Amino acid sequence: VTAASWLPVPDRSDFTLANLPYGVVRPDGDEPVAVATRVGDFVVDLSVLQATGLLDHVDGLPQGVFAYGSLNPFLACPPSVWRDTRARLTELLSEGTRHIDAVRFAVLPIDTVTPLLPIEVGDYVDYYSSSHHARNMGRILRPDADALLPNWTRLPVGYHGRAGTVIVSGEPVVRPRGLRPPAPGGAEPTYGPTELLDIEVEVGAVVGGSTQRGTSVAPDDAADLVFGFVLLNDWSARDIQAYEYVPLGPNLGKSFATTISPWVVTLDALRPYLVDSPVQDPPPAEYLRASQPWALDLCLEAALNGMTICSTDFAGMYWTFAQQLAHMTANGASIRPGDLFGSGTVSGPDPGSYGSLMELTWRGRDPITLEDGSTRTFLEDGDTVTLIGWAGDGATRVGFGGCTATIDPAPD
Amino acid sequence: VTAASWLPVPDRSDFTLANLPYGVVRPDGDEPVAVATRVGDFVVDLSVLQATGLLDHVDGLPQGVFAYGSLNPFLACPPSVWRDTRARLTELLSEGTRHIDAVRFAVLPIDTVTPLLPIEVGDYVDYYSSSHHARNMGRILRPDADALLPNWTRLPVGYHGRAGTVIVSGEPVVRPRGLRPPAPGGAEPTYGPTELLDIEVEVGAVVGGSTQRGTSVAPDDAADLVFGFVLLNDWSARDIQAYEYVPLGPNLGKSFATTISPWVVTLDALRPYLVDSPVQDPPPAEYLRASQPWALDLCLEAALNGMTICSTDFAGMYWTFAQQLAHMTANGASIRPGDLFGSGTVSGPDPGSYGSLMELTWRGRDPITLEDGSTRTFLEDGDTVTLIGWAGDGATRVGFGGCTATIDPAPD
Repeated sequence: VTAASWLPVPDRSDFTLANLPYGVVRPDGDEPVAVATRVGDFVVDLSVLQATGLLDHVDGLPQGVFAYGSLNPFLACPPSVWRDTRARLTELLSEGTRHIDAVRFAVLPIDTVTPLLPIEVGDYVDYYSSSHHARNMGRILRPDADALLPNWTRLPVGYHGRAGTVIVSGEPVVRPRGLRPPAPGGAEPTYGPTELLDIEVEVGAVVGGSTQRGTSVAPDDAADLVFGFVLLNDWSARDIQAYEYVPLGPNLGKSFATTISPWVVTLDALRPYLVDSPVQDPPPAEYLRASQPWALDLCLEAALNGMTICSTDFAGMYWTFAQQLAHMTANGASIRPGDLFGSGTVSGPDPGSYGSLMELTWRGRDPITLEDGSTRTFLEDGDTVTLIGWAGDGATRVGFGGCTATIDPAPD
Repeated sequence: VTAASWLPVPDRSDFTLANLPYGVVRPDGDEPVAVATRVGDFVVDLSVLQATGLLDHVDGLPQGVFAYGSLNPFLACPPSVWRDTRARLTELLSEGTRHIDAVRFAVLPIDTVTPLLPIEVGDYVDYYSSSHHARNMGRILRPDADALLPNWTRLPVGYHGRAGTVIVSGEPVVRPRGLRPPAPGGAEPTYGPTELLDIEVEVGAVVGGSTQRGTSVAPDDAADLVFGFVLLNDWSARDIQAYEYVPLGPNLGKSFATTISPWVVTLDALRPYLVDSPVQDPPPAEYLRASQPWALDLCLEAALNGMTICSTDFAGMYWTFAQQLAHMTANGASIRPGDLFGSGTVSGPDPGSYGSLMELTWRGRDPITLEDGSTRTFLEDGDTVTLIGWAGDGATRVGFGGCTATIDPAPD
């Protein structure tokens, strides 16, 4: 039984007392930027809580760790500090606590703060871990070959994205320019704004802690190094990507922007929703084998201008975050607090569950019709895309609260 | 005529008064880490110089900017500050200055300090800009197809590497493990230490300053955003890379380590060595056209256990750093101080000028014989690789001072 909070939690709020995500907010007026948690439509400034002594119970919590413009100092703390902080916040925010009057000093209505990018991103690696997505892309791009490449079932395929253009929900995305493939019959690529601007519905994992270069992490040890999760939209310019990507992978087709949600939902909050992942056939190599469940039972939706275009389920991903982390370190690569890794586009088996316009419109061949009767193949200037994601319901609902951006036209 | 320094400069030193590179050093004993420059076999602690007031002449130089563990705060200063600092250091370190006694307090012998990683790397992008290298790789990997892919002459092909595993010269490189392609006749990839560990002789550019997301940089404006250069060895595990790289590019085959030299040689020091680059045919798109010369006339060499295996010339690179920077921002991607971008392997037209063992041994088919009579296809445990690079000679020689690492065996 999850306790109720003395702060009001609206029906269907993502931010129940079972959630307690972490973010960074800039309050209106002169208050400094700080790390906060959120309950319902309120945020709790953790730097104020700590300054008033209310977090002194948490062993090993560094002084001033929340009076900072990113979660990174907190991410660098050991998992016991994350857990003890969560337990203490649960206590302070539950009905019946004797600390209401003291905690109230740290509470601000959500509409009086601006959520900022919650982490200083170290390295950002994006994977490709939905078998449905990988098969669809294979069918669209290589119709005469096997839908899955031979390496796909053997390792989580991924690439490094641009950490410096990971942005927070709400910031506009500028339509990128680049070299697009020659027109039919032409020989010359053309330079200009992408005509195939797409979304990718994803979940991202945020690293806490670090490893030494030369060491590896087993999947069963991943829980100590995954602090939590965000929603992630890996904006993609399909024409730019198609022209550039051989042989070194995507670059300008992806590097212009990646949007994440402002609230990092902790692994500790989502533990009840860890479930078994699909059977992997062939069985993966030893270094990718986990004995514990690591699929996350999240519902995900994407809306275009407020109208749902994709409704999908994260539990069906072929490769898990634990396997991705094990793979990322198998060669001895070190990880550090603030590293971000994405799941890759989350697509289910049915057309309505595809997580990109590439798949939803089969590369533009089959436009989708929105609820208002308009149609789309790819994104138009002024379009707003919002991702949502959640687990559980009622008093146990744990969600991300939205990951959104509007497309600005390309500069002249 | 370049003035001489009152500090001794040995014959053939890379660190003449014409150089004045920047690095970060940890002195032996209790002195704090600081930014330094180097003349001959001495370093000059710039935090001490600034604390004694000797840099007060430099307009806009922030107090304490050198009392720091990376160059990033200095990289964030405008180019006028870089130039004025260089001019003042030249004055203070020239024969005949009246400040010798004051400056001497900041001077330390090179063997009493440890050079550290000079920058906090933001994003690391590696290009593929030598036509000789790209053609060789095409011939080796796709013997039945055109050596150059159609996009190669149209844009500088590149990918994001792992910023968190960029390490400084002198740190060991641990042989990475990963999935290697199935043995001939086999169907299953095998997991284990790479058997094809390679070098890539490269030059890296270090970004100073920043741009806003949504804006682009023209090649002719690159000089204000390129602070300087390092030598860079993009270690590569060719078997791991071969198995993983389709369709998203290299990941574990590269992400275990990238070594850079500790001294960042400034663009201002290398301006005399900017020369015209090879004619580009077809002419590149407008956004990649420069009116000023941006090829760098550097000599580069690689040695294995002290024996030269490659001697090449950087001026012949097809794509320049200015074009790479313009490309990187053409889609509106922002850049920030500490971003690092690599040239890609520097290969010349002749076998002795190839910048990787892949090319030098034609993927192991033709072992090379070293001066001591031993042979190599790829690197063995215990091997030490050193890159050197320089421009000019005598009192105008400007060089990097070596970029080296030894291969440690893979962990059990």
